[in-house]
Amino acid sequence: MTANAGLARLSLNQRTIRGATLPEAVTACVTAGVPAIGLWREEVAETGLEAAAACVADAGLRVSSLCRGGFLTGSTAADRAAALADNRAAIDEAAALGAPCLVLVVGGLPAGSTDLAAARDGVRAALRDLASYAGDRGVRLALEPLHPMYCADRAVLSTLAQALDWAEEFPAGQVGVVVDTFHVWWDPDLLAQIARAGERIASYQVSDWITPLPADVLLGRGMMGDGHIDFAPITAAVATAGYRGDIEVEIFNQAVWDSPADQVMTTMCLRYRELIAP
Amino acid sequence: MTANAGLARLSLNQRTIRGATLPEAVTACVTAGVPAIGLWREEVAETGLEAAAACVADAGLRVSSLCRGGFLTGSTAADRAAALADNRAAIDEAAALGAPCLVLVVGGLPAGSTDLAAARDGVRAALRDLASYAGDRGVRLALEPLHPMYCADRAVLSTLAQALDWAEEFPAGQVGVVVDTFHVWWDPDLLAQIARAGERIASYQVSDWITPLPADVLLGRGMMGDGHIDFAPITAAVATAGYRGDIEVEIFNQAVWDSPADQVMTTMCLRYRELIAP
Repeated sequence: MTANAGLARLSLNQRTIRGATLPEAVTACVTAGVPAIGLWREEVAETGLEAAAACVADAGLRVSSLCRGGFLTGSTAADRAAALADNRAAIDEAAALGAPCLVLVVGGLPAGSTDLAAARDGVRAALRDLASYAGDRGVRLALEPLHPMYCADRAVLSTLAQALDWAEEFPAGQVGVVVDTFHVWWDPDLLAQIARAGERIASYQVSDWITPLPADVLLGRGMMGDGHIDFAPITAAVATAGYRGDIEVEIFNQAVWDSPADQVMTTMCLRYRELIAP
Repeated sequence: MTANAGLARLSLNQRTIRGATLPEAVTACVTAGVPAIGLWREEVAETGLEAAAACVADAGLRVSSLCRGGFLTGSTAADRAAALADNRAAIDEAAALGAPCLVLVVGGLPAGSTDLAAARDGVRAALRDLASYAGDRGVRLALEPLHPMYCADRAVLSTLAQALDWAEEFPAGQVGVVVDTFHVWWDPDLLAQIARAGERIASYQVSDWITPLPADVLLGRGMMGDGHIDFAPITAAVATAGYRGDIEVEIFNQAVWDSPADQVMTTMCLRYRELIAP
């Protein structure tokens, strides 16, 4: 398909219009002139892997990422083995879908544990089990540092510097990082770490930081322009670092989810052109 | 007064028993054998500065800190001038109370602004106006990095590394830093930055990180042991860095505030002995 003017690198993360099936999300992209889509495993499974791949390919869309693998901090050996198997399955799915990367939300502290250092070491050990499996299939593991407010329960990976420390143990083709504005905008060291990241940047995701945070902090992401993030310097730093891939809009927000999908797509394209497009 | 066994360095931040007047909080400390107290300006004003100073001194308590100055990111010159005047008043109050440090919550983004870099520069400029004024009065400005989830609306100072970058522009006697477990526990660089801090550590504050976060994230602090923080390595690092001052328990939590103060004091002393006492 041909992207609408100014949207050549825009990707819809499909959870931004949660409730839409994968074929509906693909149609929404085509209608709006959005040339790429970020997929989620749950919606892919619902459609079926082969049908999902065909649907996206027939529409002429690029897949910018598959969300998500990770959750590698299980407390028992059986938990960890199950997580590794599930991540290998996710890598296979990413390969089948033509997704260049699998986004990893690494997992929080194991239940009942306060041993943050051990949880972090456990993730690094799991990456050693997964990195070449991914690279061999043309899929990059994309380590996503999550906002520190999720450190206990979602991701013990909390800064871009830490993600790069972990990624640099592996070839850049095997392990990269996600720069997601919502998670990293506050970081005093952000621009320096983006420069350091260079070719390690596997995905650039955008959404805004809104206040007050909602009661469910997982739904705190706003549409670009509705919050406090200055996107221009971050986008410029990502470009200077060499990233030329898709820019994915990923918004978890009840008000956005309650709005008609076509209206969300329209607003997203408008705000992308105004605030993000490099 | 004589501290109860094992409590020689424990300080009650008076907001942990919010609702108590300053004299009531002082009495609670004496009853529980807690030898120090962290005061708040609002409660001091309610009692009157001289009466407050006399009340604490007569009880034989140490003042561990005065909370708080800061909020230095006003959007107009008049706002910023008013903030500087208010901070000088707070420094005078700290001196009158015998508080070794004034805790600074530096302020969030000015209303309507997304210019995080400018807000941060503004705080550093304000510190240049305040540091020697504080030092001349025997009060140390204690820069408190707040959890990054407060970056937009409370404090653009987000990590201990950043606090040290700012503090190191001044003599250690003028500007130090606060290590507050709730705000910094997630930081992958924490132990290295505590070691770097050395004599810059002006205050060590403890409370726990609980999940799920409550709807009002300002009230997310838990009693030590109720959450996810492993205090031992942080306390050990603070000790190794050379800090020998009071250890302040500061908990903002509705359930704690709804409990009888004597019960909170008992639990606090118990948990301090179990989890914190160096």
